[in-house]
Amino acid sequence: MHKVLFRRLALIGVGLIGSSLARVCHVRGDIAAEVVATARTATTRQKVLELGLADKVFDSLKETVAEADCVVLCTPVGSYGEIASAIGPALSIGAILTDVGSTKQSVIRDVGPFVPEGVHFVPGHPIAGTEHSGPEAGFADLFKGRYTILTPPPGTDETAVEKVTELWRRAGSIVEIMEPAHHDRVMAIVSHLPHLIAFTICGTADDLEHQSMKDVLRFAASGFRDFTRIAASDPVMWRDIFLNNREALLEMTQRFVEDMTAMARAVRWGEAEYIVDKIERGRHIRKKLIALKQA
Amino acid sequence: MHKVLFRRLALIGVGLIGSSLARVCHVRGDIAAEVVATARTATTRQKVLELGLADKVFDSLKETVAEADCVVLCTPVGSYGEIASAIGPALSIGAILTDVGSTKQSVIRDVGPFVPEGVHFVPGHPIAGTEHSGPEAGFADLFKGRYTILTPPPGTDETAVEKVTELWRRAGSIVEIMEPAHHDRVMAIVSHLPHLIAFTICGTADDLEHQSMKDVLRFAASGFRDFTRIAASDPVMWRDIFLNNREALLEMTQRFVEDMTAMARAVRWGEAEYIVDKIERGRHIRKKLIALKQA
Repeated sequence: MHKVLFRRLALIGVGLIGSSLARVCHVRGDIAAEVVATARTATTRQKVLELGLADKVFDSLKETVAEADCVVLCTPVGSYGEIASAIGPALSIGAILTDVGSTKQSVIRDVGPFVPEGVHFVPGHPIAGTEHSGPEAGFADLFKGRYTILTPPPGTDETAVEKVTELWRRAGSIVEIMEPAHHDRVMAIVSHLPHLIAFTICGTADDLEHQSMKDVLRFAASGFRDFTRIAASDPVMWRDIFLNNREALLEMTQRFVEDMTAMARAVRWGEAEYIVDKIERGRHIRKKLIALKQA
Repeated sequence: MHKVLFRRLALIGVGLIGSSLARVCHVRGDIAAEVVATARTATTRQKVLELGLADKVFDSLKETVAEADCVVLCTPVGSYGEIASAIGPALSIGAILTDVGSTKQSVIRDVGPFVPEGVHFVPGHPIAGTEHSGPEAGFADLFKGRYTILTPPPGTDETAVEKVTELWRRAGSIVEIMEPAHHDRVMAIVSHLPHLIAFTICGTADDLEHQSMKDVLRFAASGFRDFTRIAASDPVMWRDIFLNNREALLEMTQRFVEDMTAMARAVRWGEAEYIVDKIERGRHIRKKLIALKQA
């Protein structure tokens, strides 16, 4: 077994990602000697104890982080600023502060100002998840073979970056370093826009008259169904992602709506070649994904 | 075994659907005593013989239908008018003419005028398919447990409707009768719009700069991937569907683009409640699908 990475790892928030990380720590044994946690609600804290996800569960944010040498924010990104301001003064000198949020510029903007001198802030994003949420939804293999992106600000302590890298490697993940702005643009097209579309098309269908909606549900297998799996994801998490990756998401949405409008125009005017060309591009990208074993 | 339904069933076009129907006929034995077929290209006709999908393969449309008591159009819907005008004079009195096209008003518009007196025209749509195409892609279980919608024009011979119903029941399908306009609206939202979105978002991603596109492919698992499966579908088939369900597809696209624009506006102005409400609706519909075992 490797040398244990951390003495005490503190989880702030124990949903799908937090509880999966807790499970990996228990299964591996070489990530943290001790896992402590807190959660916003008493119900979740109770559940964490029942599921044996942490050695200690605290009510207070400060107590949770006080003696930890690694603190991982696992709450919706909209809560990060408030949490950072609360835990900042309680963080130990030399500790590493990291997170699992799906937006990275906003995290640096919201958390950065509260990180005390001597604490190493290494923003991170394990690109893994399911449409399920909550502490029961996690599992130890969630990160296996999936990418984790780290976006450390310039000048971040290299040993701290190396330790967070090793944390995710031990969880089974492939770790990449990226510029936060590039991360946010790529996630906007690859994840945030698809989720925005999925939530929206469900509403569009739901606004149809009653009989049509009934038939939408019955005949969903013809395409609609593929769009609804991701629409089952956690509302607060996604609200926060949309609001905290606003610029990139609005840019991608704008590009997409322009492209939809151009397609609709081609359909209206019977521009067969234009339509076939777009369909061929879609097939081409699908083939690339299959070749890359991402499909 | 039931009484055999048809003496000779003729398939015009042997792609995913046509070849699956041919396979069902062979497996069951009680649908048609003989299956004959034609296809546009010599390569496909040769493939149909090699795969043993038909008892006879003809080059000529007229020869294919001449002695058939059931003719099934299985080509892209854009080709129906031309095929109907070619086969019309060769159809036997008392024969049934049906099809598998994904649009139904256009089929009635394009085929109806060429159906001779005494031939029974029963438009149909088995709602089944995969993203694969061609005679090799078919399989006998494709229709099992899936809906088939029939849209017979008023006054259609009831025995003919009953025989086409029985054909699809024997293929394992659940058969429903529907108004062609209602069919086209429901398919527009449940299938045609999702495909239009899938093809379009692939193009939107492909237009990003090179590094972003590379990362889109690498991180596709975060949502994008779900949208690309259906983007692998056959281009000519989908071009024809889009162009032949134009009014309903444009209406659904317009509704969807309005809803996307409203979501984007809510993101821009930080309207958290609006966003959460839309996400909740998406989750609600997903839950309904799961309850209906359609997810």
